[in-house]
Amino acid sequence: MSRCAIGVDLGGTNLRIAAIDEAGKMLEKFSLPTRTRQGPEMVLREMCQAIRELARKLDGKSSLAGIGIGVPGILYLDKGILRQSPNLPGWENYPVREEIESHLGLRVFLENDANAAALGEKWLGVGRNFQSLCMLTLGTGVGGGLICEGKVWHGFLGMAGELGHIVVAEDGYPCPCGGRGCLETEASATAIVRKAQEVLDAGRSPALAEAQRKCLEITSELVYQVAKHGDTACREIFGSVGRYLGIGIAGLINSLNLPLYVVGGGVAEAWDLFAPALLEHARQRSYIFCEGSTRIERSVLKGDAGLYGAACFGLGGAA
Amino acid sequence: MSRCAIGVDLGGTNLRIAAIDEAGKMLEKFSLPTRTRQGPEMVLREMCQAIRELARKLDGKSSLAGIGIGVPGILYLDKGILRQSPNLPGWENYPVREEIESHLGLRVFLENDANAAALGEKWLGVGRNFQSLCMLTLGTGVGGGLICEGKVWHGFLGMAGELGHIVVAEDGYPCPCGGRGCLETEASATAIVRKAQEVLDAGRSPALAEAQRKCLEITSELVYQVAKHGDTACREIFGSVGRYLGIGIAGLINSLNLPLYVVGGGVAEAWDLFAPALLEHARQRSYIFCEGSTRIERSVLKGDAGLYGAACFGLGGAA
Repeated sequence: MSRCAIGVDLGGTNLRIAAIDEAGKMLEKFSLPTRTRQGPEMVLREMCQAIRELARKLDGKSSLAGIGIGVPGILYLDKGILRQSPNLPGWENYPVREEIESHLGLRVFLENDANAAALGEKWLGVGRNFQSLCMLTLGTGVGGGLICEGKVWHGFLGMAGELGHIVVAEDGYPCPCGGRGCLETEASATAIVRKAQEVLDAGRSPALAEAQRKCLEITSELVYQVAKHGDTACREIFGSVGRYLGIGIAGLINSLNLPLYVVGGGVAEAWDLFAPALLEHARQRSYIFCEGSTRIERSVLKGDAGLYGAACFGLGGAA
Repeated sequence: MSRCAIGVDLGGTNLRIAAIDEAGKMLEKFSLPTRTRQGPEMVLREMCQAIRELARKLDGKSSLAGIGIGVPGILYLDKGILRQSPNLPGWENYPVREEIESHLGLRVFLENDANAAALGEKWLGVGRNFQSLCMLTLGTGVGGGLICEGKVWHGFLGMAGELGHIVVAEDGYPCPCGGRGCLETEASATAIVRKAQEVLDAGRSPALAEAQRKCLEITSELVYQVAKHGDTACREIFGSVGRYLGIGIAGLINSLNLPLYVVGGGVAEAWDLFAPALLEHARQRSYIFCEGSTRIERSVLKGDAGLYGAACFGLGGAA
């Protein structure tokens, strides 16, 4: 009987749960809405119920080695407390791990969601053949994860990898973290929507204005579609995303000299539009990058990277 | 008989050599000028002669465990080749380790000078009680070193820790590395002199102009002295140094979540003038720093940090 783990990606919108075996095969996967308005207790109770159901389904087919849960936000890792989460409002200082373990009667591995994605890419994705890598997840915010010689680099409080809060624009836009000009304020889906609104306000893109009338809401995907059809102002937005990613990644290359930097998250779907500026700025700003063998790549596991990584923790890998 | 090591700090101006025992006691220390104009062969021959003389002096008193040499610049660590060094012009791609070993007939440890300083502070300085730390050395350039769980973090090519080339001012001043707005262009002695020249050109500091007439040359020490006497424009220069250090260190805290960040090098003598802005910006730009227990401190070994660190490598520590 194969060993498997349950991986959970606890997002602000959806809660995704999968059973993955030690060969990396996804045995089961499903998703339910994260009913954040009902508060952490209810969300965690529903999550644990779903985990139990999945565990029952596995019974007799695969032995459950462990459970890993990726959580968006800054964790006190040793205590299993969620210190702060922009995507889970009202969860500040919530003892997430204790609550889950008391429901399940089992030990679980809690991890920052971007760290989980980094581990997923290391295990089964673009980082398969690397011992160390850096992951950036571009979503509502910008998350980050560092894998150093096979292990997640947690730092002394468990808060390392907050790469979305590297300053890339010294006098830039205010960030929810309290700083300004963070990578997150320039390269997240939220940043793209803000930049698109600025374009609309300035009347610089009739195509985007037309698309907005049809779709009502501006999303980063919509801006991408308009840019793909050749709209100059929308293409410039992705050029700017790439520029700031390049500045941030160049600093990481110069600091850490890792062999691989992976860009994932929903915004990575626009890779073709932002990658040229990203690579140009990484080259300009990093002598070490120009030495040649450092790689900057797109995530291959895409939305499932975090699920695979969470399961990898559950299997006892690279914790 | 105690074990000791010889540590060398190969600077662009001076070559400093010391014998340090495993308790951290400095047994001997001396310095000679680095005659860079004579080229690497001659400099290394003189250095090796001095090392041999020192080894002879130790004979019978202490057993020589090894030799560590801190070199300014980017190294291909596994090959012992100096890839690039702004302070040692003409040494590009020079096989430094091979040359030294052929002179001495002994294996030596080559290391970037700021990595050596970081290890020195970890061994005997402000980092004594820490397993991990980040060091910034503010001199002609800005160097950096990362100690992660007791070991120097080298990265995959041995080039990690080039923290002077984190971008802190996106459209800032051009940097010798090819980028612009690097920490080095804002917080090095060279940056202070450039900023002072701008102040003079704008006629903003009669006191600095007067000091320049007396001393002929503007140095960062001179700017510091004028600032200490209350000159507003010169004080603002150190405020700016602190601001950019704060931005850079905040990014490092958010990325790495290390417990300690040490500021050393000659410019750290102006700690009293730049530290307030440094701490203010680190606080503003790093949520994790505000969590409380992260420390930002001044080097305590000062100019000898690199010598102690080089000797520590020679003793087999933390390589």
